[in-house]
Amino acid sequence: MRTLYVIGIGAGDPDQVTVQAIKALRQVDVFFVIGKGAEKRELVEVRTAILTGYADRPYRIVEIPDPPRERAPDDYRSTVQDWHERRSLLLEEAFAAHDGVGAILVWGDPALYDSTLRMVERVLARGTLDFDYTVIPGVTSVHALAARHRTVLHRIGEPVHITTGRRLREEGLGPGSTVVMLDADCTFTTVPGDTFIWWGAYLGMPDETLFAGRVGEIGGEIAHRRAELRERKGWIMDIYLLRPAE
Amino acid sequence: MRTLYVIGIGAGDPDQVTVQAIKALRQVDVFFVIGKGAEKRELVEVRTAILTGYADRPYRIVEIPDPPRERAPDDYRSTVQDWHERRSLLLEEAFAAHDGVGAILVWGDPALYDSTLRMVERVLARGTLDFDYTVIPGVTSVHALAARHRTVLHRIGEPVHITTGRRLREEGLGPGSTVVMLDADCTFTTVPGDTFIWWGAYLGMPDETLFAGRVGEIGGEIAHRRAELRERKGWIMDIYLLRPAE
Ligand SMILES: C[S@@+](CC[C@H](N)C(=O)[O-])C[C@H]1O[C@@H](n2cnc3c(N)ncnc32)[C@H](O)[C@@H]1O
Ligand SMILES: C[S@@+](CC[C@H](N)C(=O)[O-])C[C@H]1O[C@@H](n2cnc3c(N)ncnc32)[C@H](O)[C@@H]1O
Repeated sequence: MRTLYVIGIGAGDPDQVTVQAIKALRQVDVFFVIGKGAEKRELVEVRTAILTGYADRPYRIVEIPDPPRERAPDDYRSTVQDWHERRSLLLEEAFAAHDGVGAILVWGDPALYDSTLRMVERVLARGTLDFDYTVIPGVTSVHALAARHRTVLHRIGEPVHITTGRRLREEGLGPGSTVVMLDADCTFTTVPGDTFIWWGAYLGMPDETLFAGRVGEIGGEIAHRRAELRERKGWIMDIYLLRPAE
Repeated sequence: MRTLYVIGIGAGDPDQVTVQAIKALRQVDVFFVIGKGAEKRELVEVRTAILTGYADRPYRIVEIPDPPRERAPDDYRSTVQDWHERRSLLLEEAFAAHDGVGAILVWGDPALYDSTLRMVERVLARGTLDFDYTVIPGVTSVHALAARHRTVLHRIGEPVHITTGRRLREEGLGPGSTVVMLDADCTFTTVPGDTFIWWGAYLGMPDETLFAGRVGEIGGEIAHRRAELRERKGWIMDIYLLRPAE
């Protein structure tokens, strides 16, 4: 029986890796890296730091190029699903070509805005390749953000809502406090000015940048700094927590 | 300057501890343990496994007993706040009595339904004791649950809502998928029967128990098993993900 590990590695700082993740990756013969070509150098560096720091036996790295993807599709969900299908076919091919224990390292935690598990399920669902797989949870960027701001995500007993920039624009704030990920458009500028924002970019990485305050007071400054950072480095990854004034 | 670490240790499996947490706890002279008396043996065992497994120099453990707390208060928030205030006074006393680097180990991640950070902020706000503090994020029970069920928390591009049993009862399901914590009453039995549930108790621990299916089909069985486990062990800790049928 083939074995596959899907391993969360934390969201930036290589030290965010867990002992459980380290124990798993020490059993791995081949790491499948999906879409590495498109990825930012720093993300690859974090992964490399973890592998070279903790793997204690020889391993192979197999890169699986990403199929092209429409950027602003009319039907977001079905386009994404089609793309997942094509990716999962490439993944299946790669699995089939390599024996031994395989693994995919996932940024943050595999359960949060990541498509690896959906792809693996697609491979299994086709039924041509049989394997057993185990998921190792990781520290997410949500908790990295809260830790750097030394804040709890919600008010006492209240809920926390995790969503995307796209949804925030369409649906506004969720009930309680709202964490926003995958936002390329500074959508926080659309919420009421007295909303509190805790913002973080490149969390756990050398360029980590933090802001906290009322959107009405610092929203413009964050947007400005975000554009500047993105321009200087060529990419940005940011996340924020919003909470309406009491 | 005094230093304090607030360290997330993962939600059950001692191997869920991160390298960052291990590095921090190796600098610690004194661990403050709040309310240990009331705690379940297994939780204490996880913490002890982490300390004895990774601390590499002598440390002290100082127990801070919990002040009594009203269980079904009329005004939930103000009762909790009053209780936090009394706890934080005990914490301040303990800090003041011990020099060196201090730490508090927190179950899961400190940003999710945990009062440690609020207490530390209260101590700082009083201004009698000055110290610097750092928060180390951890793997939460939310991600432990998702990993054991090998599932993503949300549908593609959709939000995930994290709430309590109390809120689920009062407000129903959130938008998208809903994770419910701190539920002593099997409140999942109140949602529509075609809702999908991924349930987990004692995650990462020897008695880990998992169920997944439609609430209408397995809700009764989960409630039954939950009561049985709780009876047999004297305590239970469970969490679940709910998703409305499409
Ligand atoms: C495709 S999602 C992956 C999330 C990941 N699975 C996790 O658990 O954090 C990428 C989004 O996560 C957030 N993110 C991940 N790592 C981050 C970091 N180091 N700093 C800031 N945001 C980050 C950003 O919102 C980014 O758009
Ligand atoms: C006071 S909250 C603390 C949450 C913690 N800070 C975290 O990040 O997971 C306790 C609740 O977390 C959930 N929980 C924590 N650990 C768990 C475990 N090992 N198995 C199942 N549920 C758990 C349960 O819903 C429980 O009622």
